[in-house]
Amino acid sequence: MTDRDDSRPPSRRAFLKGAAVAGSATLAGRPVRADDPAITALQPWMIARGEGVDARPYGLPSPHESHVIKRNIEWLTADAISSVNFTPLAALNGTITPNGLCFERHHAGIAEIDPAAHRLMIHGLVERPLVFTMADILRFPRRDRIHFLECAANSGMEWKGAQMNAVQFTHGMIHNVMYTGVPLRLLLEEAGVRPGAKWVLAEGADAVKMARSIPLEKALDDCLVAFAMNGERLREEQGYPLRLVVPGFEGSMWVKWLRRLELGDRPWHLREEASRYTDLLGDGRARRFTFEMDAKSVITSPAPEAPITHGPGPMVITGLAWSGRGRIARVDVSLDGGVNWHPARLSGPSLDKALHRFHFDFRWNGKPLLLQSRCIDSTGYVQPTKDALRALRGLNSVYHNNGIQTWEVNEAGEVTNVEVG
Amino acid sequence: MTDRDDSRPPSRRAFLKGAAVAGSATLAGRPVRADDPAITALQPWMIARGEGVDARPYGLPSPHESHVIKRNIEWLTADAISSVNFTPLAALNGTITPNGLCFERHHAGIAEIDPAAHRLMIHGLVERPLVFTMADILRFPRRDRIHFLECAANSGMEWKGAQMNAVQFTHGMIHNVMYTGVPLRLLLEEAGVRPGAKWVLAEGADAVKMARSIPLEKALDDCLVAFAMNGERLREEQGYPLRLVVPGFEGSMWVKWLRRLELGDRPWHLREEASRYTDLLGDGRARRFTFEMDAKSVITSPAPEAPITHGPGPMVITGLAWSGRGRIARVDVSLDGGVNWHPARLSGPSLDKALHRFHFDFRWNGKPLLLQSRCIDSTGYVQPTKDALRALRGLNSVYHNNGIQTWEVNEAGEVTNVEVG
Repeated sequence: MTDRDDSRPPSRRAFLKGAAVAGSATLAGRPVRADDPAITALQPWMIARGEGVDARPYGLPSPHESHVIKRNIEWLTADAISSVNFTPLAALNGTITPNGLCFERHHAGIAEIDPAAHRLMIHGLVERPLVFTMADILRFPRRDRIHFLECAANSGMEWKGAQMNAVQFTHGMIHNVMYTGVPLRLLLEEAGVRPGAKWVLAEGADAVKMARSIPLEKALDDCLVAFAMNGERLREEQGYPLRLVVPGFEGSMWVKWLRRLELGDRPWHLREEASRYTDLLGDGRARRFTFEMDAKSVITSPAPEAPITHGPGPMVITGLAWSGRGRIARVDVSLDGGVNWHPARLSGPSLDKALHRFHFDFRWNGKPLLLQSRCIDSTGYVQPTKDALRALRGLNSVYHNNGIQTWEVNEAGEVTNVEVG
Repeated sequence: MTDRDDSRPPSRRAFLKGAAVAGSATLAGRPVRADDPAITALQPWMIARGEGVDARPYGLPSPHESHVIKRNIEWLTADAISSVNFTPLAALNGTITPNGLCFERHHAGIAEIDPAAHRLMIHGLVERPLVFTMADILRFPRRDRIHFLECAANSGMEWKGAQMNAVQFTHGMIHNVMYTGVPLRLLLEEAGVRPGAKWVLAEGADAVKMARSIPLEKALDDCLVAFAMNGERLREEQGYPLRLVVPGFEGSMWVKWLRRLELGDRPWHLREEASRYTDLLGDGRARRFTFEMDAKSVITSPAPEAPITHGPGPMVITGLAWSGRGRIARVDVSLDGGVNWHPARLSGPSLDKALHRFHFDFRWNGKPLLLQSRCIDSTGYVQPTKDALRALRGLNSVYHNNGIQTWEVNEAGEVTNVEVG
């Protein structure tokens, strides 16, 4: 195999040795006994035929997985219409987020759009103001790209110290899917960019007309006007029938229900890029337009909602890493709150501005742990501690918290969100 | 951008030139008129707030996409329990298949398994017969890999000539997801492979105990015992809680509801690898164990169920290509039934034994077309014509039809499955 995307797993010798050191030779499977009811029992599904191929034209998860859902926090916002819910990271694997579990952030609820009536207009500093139907959009050359989308406010509650006791709530404002769409550059060139144009306003068709100013340079680089995610058309809550994809940039710029692109010579300084999505610094000044999402990682299991239930011995520590500036070059894991670091194993394709999955195959001795992960991206940037961020940014921030997260594990395997710098 | 995964799209100049030659300057968007009701109309979603973030804990597609579903063919099998349904390829984009739309093939219906009661046993020619719970499996090192799964019978009805007038039915027994699982090698090594072991029997927990013989060499190479697909746990119809992933090999070997792995010194020659999944040749002899899925491609749009509705001018021809022996190196598209070939553009990550998406950006002159695609894989193998396959294999075959597919397009843009060698 020359094309394996990551290193070979540890050998059996190493794995068994780990089990033996932990005091048990059977941690990774039990010897077969002919009278073991767990293997001799005739379960219902073994003796009766199940549903046929006509039963589930659009499939759903097993009822045993009904706890794996997006969740919101009722006290966080005044209502559920202008609010957020969170991806259940602790229960997920790999790097692709299933469409049904992608977190949502709306400012006026979910727009339910008839695609036949939807239009995208391009105007402002262009040669030819144009309006496109969905059928028009589908005639342009397409791209297919996997990218993460992270809300700028992800981990925002943690600026104050450890607040939320679930990785779903500390880090769940992120998802990662394959988008299919038309390069924004092609649509802008079709309208003809006029000299002097430097910014693009992207506006949604929802009731609040959510809008953001985007530098023209980025619009002409790698942005997509996307109509599909993970193969199928966008979900309504993700902007059906059109959303802007702004790789590596904060989520609110990925305007959903995209209806209007206006070219201008300066940013618009609208409400959602002034009173929101602006970084208030320690000295009371505000930092505008922090577009890129800096490199960040988090251990998704174990986590407060995914404790260690099997006792000491071999186990997997796993998590996610990402960078708005490129790929992830390396992830390290600490078991002692950042004193010592051990290289984790990256698994799956490594793609630009996309989630990366890391695993750390580890033998737990049953003693307390202070788990951390720290990533380095392809630019050499190292994920900072929360205290290092606070020293630069003060304590007034909400957005762009990419600091190192700490999970404390006690001897019972329970996991708590704690503050270790 | 140094990390773009495919070439830059055609320039605006080239795209507009195409439009102009076709007799219209506004094919790719209409000039904005201030009185155009399509852009001045206040749609319901623009003036009322929508559902909040608590409304859709597990999201589903827009009602406007309700036609995008798996479909079965009632006359194809005696009942829907031992049957197949098909992925709606014409409506999909990119390369990731959403879990809800992955085609299904069962031999005794969908097993609905309680994961707490499920066990995986490894026995036969091993040092230590072992039984694993799901919790045990989750303690082993994991891999995350994107692979296609194609049923050996995909396109099987087409051996007789053009039969099915929909790409969903000619090529829809395929899907492509990211799996997370434990390398089968690690589990086998944990049990200890005894000298003389050469084959592994993989058996499911469904009522028919679907089982296949797998060469030990493959089992020790890149097979996974998978518990997740596209991030979430397997769907029931895809083998929840455990399925075997056998990259590049025919789909029936990817045993679902995996409950038993037996090591032996020869294949088992069970019903589902003798009376089925064996290739009957022209001279009446049978070819056993055709494991690898050879390189294949198909245009998914336009297709019989996705006609050209916009008339002449710029458009996208798009499709999928894959190989059980590696990556796809190249896809060509023909507009004239294979007389002339034009290179298509590969889009998205190129991964081993995974679907590849191709696009051909093209200006239709409104005249009839005979559309074909032909792929070359990383071993240099060229997808054959159907007639070339028939010359080698005769007319009795059902399985492993990877021949070139032809769609005839008439002047109205309607698409028909036709036979052109």
